[in-house]
Amino acid sequence: MSKPVLAIDMGGTKIKIGLVQEETVLSYISIDAESEKGLAPKLPLIKRTIEIMLAQHNLTQSDISGLGIASPGIVDSVQKKILSIDKKFGDAPEINLEKWCLETFNLPFSIENDARSALIGEWKYGKADTYDNIVLMTLGTGIGSAVVMEGRLLRGKHFTAGILGGHSVINYLGNICNCGNKGCVETEASTWNLPVIATAERNFTGSKLSLPQVIDYELIFRLAEEGDSVAEAIRDRSLQAWSACAINLIHAYDPEVLVLTGGIMASNFYILPFIRQYVENHAWTPWGKVQIEEGNFPRTAALLGIAHLINH
Amino acid sequence: MSKPVLAIDMGGTKIKIGLVQEETVLSYISIDAESEKGLAPKLPLIKRTIEIMLAQHNLTQSDISGLGIASPGIVDSVQKKILSIDKKFGDAPEINLEKWCLETFNLPFSIENDARSALIGEWKYGKADTYDNIVLMTLGTGIGSAVVMEGRLLRGKHFTAGILGGHSVINYLGNICNCGNKGCVETEASTWNLPVIATAERNFTGSKLSLPQVIDYELIFRLAEEGDSVAEAIRDRSLQAWSACAINLIHAYDPEVLVLTGGIMASNFYILPFIRQYVENHAWTPWGKVQIEEGNFPRTAALLGIAHLINH
Repeated sequence: MSKPVLAIDMGGTKIKIGLVQEETVLSYISIDAESEKGLAPKLPLIKRTIEIMLAQHNLTQSDISGLGIASPGIVDSVQKKILSIDKKFGDAPEINLEKWCLETFNLPFSIENDARSALIGEWKYGKADTYDNIVLMTLGTGIGSAVVMEGRLLRGKHFTAGILGGHSVINYLGNICNCGNKGCVETEASTWNLPVIATAERNFTGSKLSLPQVIDYELIFRLAEEGDSVAEAIRDRSLQAWSACAINLIHAYDPEVLVLTGGIMASNFYILPFIRQYVENHAWTPWGKVQIEEGNFPRTAALLGIAHLINH
Repeated sequence: MSKPVLAIDMGGTKIKIGLVQEETVLSYISIDAESEKGLAPKLPLIKRTIEIMLAQHNLTQSDISGLGIASPGIVDSVQKKILSIDKKFGDAPEINLEKWCLETFNLPFSIENDARSALIGEWKYGKADTYDNIVLMTLGTGIGSAVVMEGRLLRGKHFTAGILGGHSVINYLGNICNCGNKGCVETEASTWNLPVIATAERNFTGSKLSLPQVIDYELIFRLAEEGDSVAEAIRDRSLQAWSACAINLIHAYDPEVLVLTGGIMASNFYILPFIRQYVENHAWTPWGKVQIEEGNFPRTAALLGIAHLINH
């Protein structure tokens, strides 16, 4: 069995720091990401958290085979650099993370896009382990995607292949996205844009969504259940937006299975049946039906995947 | 040098029948497709046209290395069958074309999707011959696409990978497409749907577009130039729809070059600069700029490509 690996998943809301051995997450700790403040201010806390975690497991650096980071944005996994990132962790492309890893822990370093990491986790150890043609779609702060085609992880010449599903245009006359594009899935339906989406609704002021609070999809789904018409409208449109994204991914990559994961999926029972039905009604797959499944590791797929990359 | 090949391009409006040797189309003849009536009624005319063409070149079947068909729709190039097709040539999946080819000409047979064939033509002999990461987009009766990634033509497990760019959703709350999907690029902006698009415009009855005539993009662009406001609206929205499609393809496949081809491109000087500017403004390509080029063979790329497949 391989040595354990330190795995870090830089989510937009939480950074997860884990100790992973093969298919097992031995333990993990979540810290607030405060990603709008950048990554550099978080590095000391990440270091301390790792030290505490190693101590809890009676491990030293020599017991560890490497440190891997799953990051949002476009990641050059060969040069081991973050090339471009949305507003989340905006300073990350300027930080030499490999150098930080070597100086701080003297460990081998890997970095990969977070959705690609999650796909590797589900492909090697989880829901997709019997397939060689896989699309993964993550619904969370943003919307991520990743693809395995004919047994190969898609990276593309410039490392953008497969991961920009959240930035496929589904409303070409719509609003400008964080990324500079127009009418992206993320602009239409993702957590980071929910406050804007909600306030743009007619009758917003008459909805419970207008009370002072953090608006996330848990709230949207709960208020929609209670009959709040603004929340209902957002819920129904978001389900259609995610389904359109699913169809764009299926049409683009011809998968056998679509794995859904991410923070929104973890807390909701409506999304999976809705997307399944929508894809069955609307996707052009004359060969049969794409399997649409929830991932096995909604919280830890990316930790498992980036740890796998360290050892293989 | 290889023997010549018989190459057939089943376009929605015209069927092209050509004699191709390596990178040279020795000659080709276009016949009306009348694709709404199906393919079977056309086979006798295709046979006669081929016989005439061979006679003109003083060739017999023994001088020919094979017959290839570039077809719209989803094509199984291994079993040599059309799996599924839009309303165009609706009977094609029921016809055993390999058997027809053997019985009629006693020649080896190949079949491939038309956009994939055009991509091979531009990749092997044309605009994209120095690249290994290529997306091709055809604008015509319908909208087609095809992809080469890292030097490999994308087919996918079920033969749908890369070719459904025209059926990517760009208007998720939009109308139902021929294919059963909602808000496809083809529904928003392609020749087959122009009559519906035009009549749905406000003020349609005040536009010259309402006169009895065939509505195609040549007419749209000409009337828009003359200041017809309905034609202007359709032109401007179509340019945005094709640009959104281009961005979806670039985001999905990470190409170095996007090659534009097809009937609409052949007659218009606005499209290429518009899409170039739109992609420059809106695509997420931190590594640099995707080259956006018109194909070298707007009429014959698919003939060249399917002939290449016969010989390689």
